Amino acid sequence: MQNQPLLLSSLLRHADRFHANTEIVSRTVEGPIHRYTYRDAARRARQLASALQRHGIGHSDRVATLAWNNYRHFEIEHGVTGMGAIWHAINPRLIPAQLIYIANHAEDKVLFFESSFLPLVEKLAPDLPTVGLFVLMADRAALPAVTSIPNLQCYEDFISAGDEGFAWPVFDELSASSLFYTSGTTGNPKGVLYSHRSDVLHCLSITGVYSMGLAATDTILPMTPMFHANGAWGFTHAAPMVGAKLVLPGPRMDAASIAELIEMEGVTVTAGVPTLYSKLLQHFEEQGRGAGTMQRLVVAGSAPAPSMIEGFERLGVSVNHVWGMTETSPCGTSTQPSRRTAKASPQEQLGRKTMQGTPVYGVDVKIADENGNEMPHDGKSSGRFMVRGPWVLSGYYRDEKPLLEDGWFNTGDLAVMDDDNYIQLTDRAKDVIKSGGEWISSIDVENLAAGCPGVAEAAVIGIPHPQWEERPLLIVVPSASEPATAKAVLSFLEGKIAKWWMPDDVIFVEALTYGATGKVQKMELRRRFAGHYTSQKSA
Amino acid sequence: MQNQPLLLSSLLRHADRFHANTEIVSRTVEGPIHRYTYRDAARRARQLASALQRHGIGHSDRVATLAWNNYRHFEIEHGVTGMGAIWHAINPRLIPAQLIYIANHAEDKVLFFESSFLPLVEKLAPDLPTVGLFVLMADRAALPAVTSIPNLQCYEDFISAGDEGFAWPVFDELSASSLFYTSGTTGNPKGVLYSHRSDVLHCLSITGVYSMGLAATDTILPMTPMFHANGAWGFTHAAPMVGAKLVLPGPRMDAASIAELIEMEGVTVTAGVPTLYSKLLQHFEEQGRGAGTMQRLVVAGSAPAPSMIEGFERLGVSVNHVWGMTETSPCGTSTQPSRRTAKASPQEQLGRKTMQGTPVYGVDVKIADENGNEMPHDGKSSGRFMVRGPWVLSGYYRDEKPLLEDGWFNTGDLAVMDDDNYIQLTDRAKDVIKSGGEWISSIDVENLAAGCPGVAEAAVIGIPHPQWEERPLLIVVPSASEPATAKAVLSFLEGKIAKWWMPDDVIFVEALTYGATGKVQKMELRRRFAGHYTSQKSA
Repeated sequence: MQNQPLLLSSLLRHADRFHANTEIVSRTVEGPIHRYTYRDAARRARQLASALQRHGIGHSDRVATLAWNNYRHFEIEHGVTGMGAIWHAINPRLIPAQLIYIANHAEDKVLFFESSFLPLVEKLAPDLPTVGLFVLMADRAALPAVTSIPNLQCYEDFISAGDEGFAWPVFDELSASSLFYTSGTTGNPKGVLYSHRSDVLHCLSITGVYSMGLAATDTILPMTPMFHANGAWGFTHAAPMVGAKLVLPGPRMDAASIAELIEMEGVTVTAGVPTLYSKLLQHFEEQGRGAGTMQRLVVAGSAPAPSMIEGFERLGVSVNHVWGMTETSPCGTSTQPSRRTAKASPQEQLGRKTMQGTPVYGVDVKIADENGNEMPHDGKSSGRFMVRGPWVLSGYYRDEKPLLEDGWFNTGDLAVMDDDNYIQLTDRAKDVIKSGGEWISSIDVENLAAGCPGVAEAAVIGIPHPQWEERPLLIVVPSASEPATAKAVLSFLEGKIAKWWMPDDVIFVEALTYGATGKVQKMELRRRFAGHYTSQKSA
Repeated sequence: MQNQPLLLSSLLRHADRFHANTEIVSRTVEGPIHRYTYRDAARRARQLASALQRHGIGHSDRVATLAWNNYRHFEIEHGVTGMGAIWHAINPRLIPAQLIYIANHAEDKVLFFESSFLPLVEKLAPDLPTVGLFVLMADRAALPAVTSIPNLQCYEDFISAGDEGFAWPVFDELSASSLFYTSGTTGNPKGVLYSHRSDVLHCLSITGVYSMGLAATDTILPMTPMFHANGAWGFTHAAPMVGAKLVLPGPRMDAASIAELIEMEGVTVTAGVPTLYSKLLQHFEEQGRGAGTMQRLVVAGSAPAPSMIEGFERLGVSVNHVWGMTETSPCGTSTQPSRRTAKASPQEQLGRKTMQGTPVYGVDVKIADENGNEMPHDGKSSGRFMVRGPWVLSGYYRDEKPLLEDGWFNTGDLAVMDDDNYIQLTDRAKDVIKSGGEWISSIDVENLAAGCPGVAEAAVIGIPHPQWEERPLLIVVPSASEPATAKAVLSFLEGKIAKWWMPDDVIFVEALTYGATGKVQKMELRRRFAGHYTSQKSA
């Protein structure tokens, strides 16, 4: 057999050769819709690679972006990786100190950024000594007359110096392709470095039916930002691989803007986190015109509420909840129906879609005890959720610490697996509540509480308790209309969970704080309410 | 990222871990239906690998099979490849001289065979000096009391000596996995040696929607034999990869037996050549009970007639015609709808399904002139159909002759590609008819003729002609009921093809001879009718 390396340049090249006229549609940060084709994108990605090469960027050099989902970002992703450099997509929602930390940790040589981030970059630039070139992702007209940024160029000028005939180099498929930092709840962000091989394999996997099931006839709108794991969870790879139309929504992530794009462009598949979908569903329901051409959605980041799944399915949109993390490229498990699920009652099917699902081929999973021994698939035995496979991390970027345990990566979640091999997270290891020597699953309680009328969002944390070591505290964001009372929430929970799982108190807050990847920042809540039970006692 | 080699053992291991209770159902050569699960298959494949290891089979040793599609054959495929030996599936339809040639060329060390091949193997055994062990794929009761085969064991005894706890070894993914010989029309059969890497990549590709779209909820019945390219075109890999139920039909390939299995087992997807589907369609139509649970079919080997596609689609079965050859693992192009096709009229869609379709990611295609220059995608410029990619052959087994032209494999077909990147074969390079300096496509004419009422099968060949160098001759197998006349066929063609493409004569025969891969043996027809125009002239 021909031994060709698996390189990301093959994706856009394939689309250019066999889906050249298929469109990429973007909402720009400036507002207007931009549309062109894979042929155009491929030509400009080659130009960009050539221009970077002329600027001195070589194999494995880091090239950073601060940008939303749009066509120039897509060109940078494919141009930088295709030439053998490393695309470092920075999450602009991080605080400046973290932005500076990761750009320096990565030693980024070039920073591409959108005009909306100009003030931010002006502030950061003095602290980014490795960055020798700043490129504003716009044309010359958008360049500021005066700026403190040294060596600032505009994107269109920069690529115009590049050669359209640039030939993608061939190199080892184990070469690094892109770098994403995960914002842990403690310590500095950690870098996850993907390889060309891992990216192409992950992409082949997610196009399968058992994962996302993508085809040339699809029109894909990734709401998840390209600076999240692996370029919008791999969708900016998968679209050219299958020749699907790609719709990039830019910075406007409000439900009305997304719904408008879905309608205008005939979107069939979207990807995003539950909070965005909740708003989109509410919008569809208010408008009363259905979900249009939308057939399927992929939801990840955290588990969707049953009411969200039901709502979309009523509109004829099938919901695939997938589980993953930056460290797993990200897709690891999928709730596409198993043979048993397919025959289950609608109620049971709904329940299974809120679970994390079953491993896709390529991602091996075990639920393990402290010694790494696999626990039974009985739906009860909770253990450490461990994964391994060719698109799973082996160690963080520039971190010598051994990460794997006997070849397995510990996700940090606790989970059970049932006899149909469906995984359900019971908790983040660090979020678990230990009360009187017994574990309480915060996720179970907060999922239930989120279903209580008058509750918009809910989080459960364990905080110090003089008698029980820790006891659960329920934090609730009430609905705007007819907000629930503490008493109502607690009686809603009664009988649904074990007595000793019942939160000792309910606290109402205006909003919960979410991390960059859509997870509630429980660390902060625990800090804020640390003394709630102990000071009550002493008061 | 973790650098795990892509090994075939991961497929059955995945099914064993996460789809353990999903069934593999086989019709045995003895008649009865056998059913067990992936867990059982995995256990027995490990036992088999262990037994082979104890017998002295090592990395890259060749282990041959002469068998139909059934569970023991599935175990051998996965057991032999999983342990790092090479599975050599022999096509039992070859003539004895060819069987002997390829077993010796491969230097097979073990031969597994089914009881129906006992007389054949008794005849062949003296000429197979490298085979040190013969294993009858049955239990002890089936062993003949007297046999001329030296060192004959039965399968069940053989594997019972193996260790169920055998651990799949880890080795280089470029290691060879399996060997299939293609029966060329001239010369000795040539060996195509697959690797673990090429097989896993091919399998990931065919599970995608743009190819075959397979999921855990499918029940797959490969009618194509496991001794064809890559174990039933990769379906015996894809089923465990996605966790689908697998139905192996054994030797009974008549339409009634296949239809019975489809009904009994709830088959959703089948794979096979057009001749089998024609019979299956006729059976469904005669029975008048529809196609049951069958949702989709994959047809390959040669192009399906429009009437066959229409017939199945009337029964609610969608048809995916894919193109490939042993040298391409085999899947290379697919007629899953493009964005344009999806919006085309039913008539146009039908026409496109008889074409060879568009390249799937991983298989690069060009239509090239004699110098390798790519020809325009205009639907008119016919050229050599060239392919390359990580599951395309680089050279035949034990054949030093350089095969690739500048990295491309020449399929030997002539084709055009249209501006929607759909490929249409115009001819095998060697079947092309050259009349008065102009080319005539035999495929176009025979496809048209096959649609004429009263014609069951049709073939067009070019034979020597005193004036025009070659002229087309139409060979027809008439329908049993209301057979067509020569005049009727020719007037049916009139106006549908260029005047000079019109066959000069029509000859009726009882049957056409097909090669092992379902293609009409035109070589033989050309030999038989070589003097038809010249002797007519002289007569």
